[in-house]
Order: sequence, then structure tokens, then C-alpha cells
Amino acid sequence: MMWYESAGRDNDVAVSSRVRLARNLTDYPFGSLLNDASAKEIIERVKNVFEGVGDYTFTDYSDLEEIERKAAVEKHKVSAEFASSKKPRALIESERKQVYIMTPEEDHIRIQSILAGFSLEEALSRAREADETIDGALNVAYNDKLGYLTHCPTNLGTGMRASVMLFLPALTISGGIRALSAQLGKIGLTIRGMSGEGSSADGCLYQVSNQITLGISEEEIVSKLSKITESIIEKERNLRQKIKSADNGRFEDRVMRSYGVMMYATMIDTNEMMRLYADVRLGAALGIIDGASLSELDKMMVRGMAANLTCENKEIKTPEERDRARAELIRRILSGAE
Amino acid sequence: MMWYESAGRDNDVAVSSRVRLARNLTDYPFGSLLNDASAKEIIERVKNVFEGVGDYTFTDYSDLEEIERKAAVEKHKVSAEFASSKKPRALIESERKQVYIMTPEEDHIRIQSILAGFSLEEALSRAREADETIDGALNVAYNDKLGYLTHCPTNLGTGMRASVMLFLPALTISGGIRALSAQLGKIGLTIRGMSGEGSSADGCLYQVSNQITLGISEEEIVSKLSKITESIIEKERNLRQKIKSADNGRFEDRVMRSYGVMMYATMIDTNEMMRLYADVRLGAALGIIDGASLSELDKMMVRGMAANLTCENKEIKTPEERDRARAELIRRILSGAE
Repeated sequence: MMWYESAGRDNDVAVSSRVRLARNLTDYPFGSLLNDASAKEIIERVKNVFEGVGDYTFTDYSDLEEIERKAAVEKHKVSAEFASSKKPRALIESERKQVYIMTPEEDHIRIQSILAGFSLEEALSRAREADETIDGALNVAYNDKLGYLTHCPTNLGTGMRASVMLFLPALTISGGIRALSAQLGKIGLTIRGMSGEGSSADGCLYQVSNQITLGISEEEIVSKLSKITESIIEKERNLRQKIKSADNGRFEDRVMRSYGVMMYATMIDTNEMMRLYADVRLGAALGIIDGASLSELDKMMVRGMAANLTCENKEIKTPEERDRARAELIRRILSGAE
Repeated sequence: MMWYESAGRDNDVAVSSRVRLARNLTDYPFGSLLNDASAKEIIERVKNVFEGVGDYTFTDYSDLEEIERKAAVEKHKVSAEFASSKKPRALIESERKQVYIMTPEEDHIRIQSILAGFSLEEALSRAREADETIDGALNVAYNDKLGYLTHCPTNLGTGMRASVMLFLPALTISGGIRALSAQLGKIGLTIRGMSGEGSSADGCLYQVSNQITLGISEEEIVSKLSKITESIIEKERNLRQKIKSADNGRFEDRVMRSYGVMMYATMIDTNEMMRLYADVRLGAALGIIDGASLSELDKMMVRGMAANLTCENKEIKTPEERDRARAELIRRILSGAE
């Protein structure tokens, strides 16, 4: 199961939570200096560590078709860099634990846990469990003064990046994202739109994450990010109530129209899907729509992306066919057939 | 029952057929010279003629509220001139026969029959039956050379106007209305959009009628108009098939989206209703949509007009309330609840 297939805490605003730990082995050069033979050795070593541990499975990403790798990026299971790399590389993952270990990525090992909703502490605990398994078996590069050594100095220390994916339509509509961004920058956090500029065409999805990894503990990072996330959630909820009550039915009409298009259109492109997703997800969060659950909508949004859609429908050849398959998938998910 | 409450012949293109006969009584001055006392006498005389004949009912339009009169115009039951006149006036109607007799209008008596679909001959026969009833009881102004004498010289002779209301979305889209209009003008017929210019905002509805009433019999008028109507129907149907097959699913998508908006929007204004009506009626005629019948859509279009809506929902005060009531009515009709 992946994050978009279940309903997490506070998921009216918090879509998913992620913790990523960057680790390197002492016996090999870092990132760009790593040759293919060494990369294969690292993959073998990490694979052996997780053999027989829990229910981890191994996938050689060098063998995978491009469309499958892109689909994994859309699911946030692997990074875009990992997917497009030319080097030997593998993913070791536990579906049940929702932990995904890329080896090698920019660092020799990158452990991620992604969970539905607002679950940073749980994501940290799951990533740490995998980290301890590695630590107990391999020589991980660690310096008493600097902490974990990483390829890029911005990851030194904890080697950790914690982030929450937030659905912020009301803050977007009210123009509050810029001020929020400035405010977060001052305390070592950052916010960015999920696909660039964060217009409503991106589904009003944003990622808030820590920038600083050094001189601060993992718990402190998670605690700080959690506190800020709670205040953003609060602000977004208040603004939503204002939108709902202020506009004399216009907002409800817009939400219902978008739902109607989802239920009946026969061709929907990605941009439109994201716009509809934002409208209907907000409507569902406010109780205007009861035909669509938040997690159904998240599932629709991920599975409706180009690569995932093509993986599920191998016969797709043209953009028109993809738009048709997307409209059909949306209808099936909303009518409970998927 | 009125025309929009049943399904007539060829109703994929022909929405309704109408025959109107203008008659005047010899004992009274024409139209504008008619004083209120004479108008009342005429009303009384015509009323007496139909007392005990069939199931005719009598309504004093001088007493009727404005909104009720406007609603009757929207239903095409009475003319706009009759509805807004300041003179004493009454409507004598048979719901079963679908015959509506205005007295006085521009002429002392105007008999109309309006039927669903393509039924000009039947409409003529029903109007004639009422005409014969009047002729047998009152002195109708008739001249052996000129025929029936009417207030306006353009009605002299038969005093008849026959018309069909046609749904011509494909001819509209393909830009063929102008050429059709020129062609009809040459043979004494005319075409006009139902609410002015005949853009798709008017639901692609057009009225084709005879211009000439003199030197031609009623049968000849109906026969000529019928023949032309058949050829327009044929042309429209051919163009529709081209639209359906040519555009790789884009047309189906548009139709289904409009249907989705009808099913889910919570506020719909008149212009949008007419646009949606045109899209979905064409989709239904082409078998793309099976959730909406042609006659349901016609019923929706008439009952969704401003005055009819207000008559059905007396609590409506603002345009927003009317748009909401319209969206609700549309949903109820399409879901078979009305």
C-alpha cells in the first residue's frame, strides 16, 4: 500500500508526510566518483542486509522500462534523479512499512518513508528502523563533529529531509502563499509548489520541508516542522470556512460543476485533472460533496498521471487516448469501481 | 398537455408545429379602433360560442398577474402582444386539443394550434375545427376576392401563419443558416432565431414560417412549408452525422460535459441553460446520451425559463434564487423526478 491508497490524519489539508535519510558507506567514493562496478557492489551489500529482514523486496531499476520508472516518480516512491540515472541502481522496499530505499542515489543509500496524512513522527520512526538495520551491518560514514557525511554539504549532520505535502486551495485563492513562504524561510523551512509555481493548475499541492540538517536533531526537525504544519493547517481551515460562507452559493456551484465534469467528461488532460482535483477535494473537505472521499481523490490524482496511466493501459498510443483513459479512470474511481 | 410535454414526429429536428388563423367580426372596428366596451362584447360573444363545445376553458387575461402572462408567452400559448396589451382580453383554450384562441389580439380572434414535432397538417386541422365553430355562429369578415379580412394587410387572404420550430445545431455550427435564410426568402418563407440572432446561446432553435397569405390556399401553404421542412431536416441530419464522426471524440466529450453540468451545477442562468440544452439535445438525438429524452429536454427548456420558473416557485425573489431553482428543476427533470 502507498500513501495515496489510505486516509491519514488531518488529510483535509495534509496529504502525505515523508522522512528521507541520506547515508553513505565509508569504503566507497561519493556520488559522481562512484563507478559502475562500485555501484553494483553497494547494491549487493544493501540487498544482503535486507535479505530475510521483514518483507523487503528488491527491484533492479537499471532493468526497468522508462515508463515504469516515471510512474514510480509520480508516486513519490523514488526521486526523479534516481529514475533517470544511467548508473546501476536498485530499490529495496517494504510495501507494508511504506519504506523505500534507493541505492545508490546522489548518496549511496537513501531511505524514505512516506505515509498518508500528517504522520511525520511515524515516518521518522519507520525510516529509522531501516537505518538501524543498515547501521548494524555496514560501515556508514559518520563523523562525531559533523554527523552523517553526505555527498552534498546541505545534507550533512542528520542527513535528513522531512516534508509534508499540503493541500492549500484557500491559501492559494487568498494569495497567502507568498507571505507564508517568506515566514518559513526565516525559520529554516521552505515551501514549494508540487509542480513548479503552485498555481491552482497544480492541484494547490505544496511541499513544506526543512532546509537545515546540521546542528539540530532529527526529533527537533520533526517537532519544528510539525508545529508549523499545525499552524498552516489551522490557517487553511479558517480560510476555507470564510470561502464557504462568503460567496452566496457560487463556490458550491463551482465545486459541483467540477464534480459533474469528472463524472461525465470523456477526455481530461493532466492540467484539467489537477484543477478538478483541487475544486472537488476542497468541496469534499468542506462536506459539500459526499460522492468523493479525500483518499479516492488522491488515488485518482496519482493514478491519473501520465506514466501511471500508461503503465495501467499498455495499449495507449496517443495523447487523446491517454486523455480518454484518464477520464474513464476518474469515473471508475469516483463511482467506487476501483 | 402542451407541445413540450409530449414527443412528436421527427422531433430530433422538429420541436413543434404551429398554425395560427386571424379572424375578425364584421360588426366591430379593427384592432386599434376597438374600444374597451366593444372588446368586452367580442370576448363575450366568442366565449358563448365555445360554451359547451368540447372542453374549452376560459381565462380572463386582464385579471391575470404579469408573471402568469409572461409564462404563457414562454410556452408559446399566447403572443407577447396579447400578454402585454392593456385592453380587456381573454384566452379560450382546449388543453386536450392543444388549441388556444386569443380574443381580441391584433385581430378580434386569433386561433392557434401548437403540436409537438412535425405535425403541420394536424395543427391546421385542429385550428380549422375551432374556426368552423366560430364561422357557424358569428359574422366573420370575409371578402370573396380578398378572403379573410385582417387588421394587418400582410395577413389578408387565408389569415394564416404556419410555422415549425426547428432545432438546427449542426446547421448553426457549420454556418449554413444565412444561406438557408436567403433561399427561403426567395420562395416566400422566412427563418428567424427564437430569441433574436440565432446563436447557439438561443439553443439553436429557429422558426420557419410562411410570409405570404394571399392568393394561396391553406393546404398549399402547409404543403409548401412541409416540403421545405423535410429538406431542412434531411440536411441537418446529414450535417450531424458528419460532426459526430469527424472530430475524434471531442464532440462526445463536449456533450457529456454539458450533461455533467446539468446534473451537478447548483446555479444555471437562462443563457447557459439554452447552451446546455443545445449540446445535450444534439447528443440525445445522436444517441450519445441516453439519460435524457428529447421531450424531457424541451420540457426543461420551457419550464426553466424565467417566468415559468417564478410561477412554479413563488418564493423566488432574486436572480440568484432563480438560477438555483433552475438548476434544481433541470436536475429533477433529468433524473426523472418531474
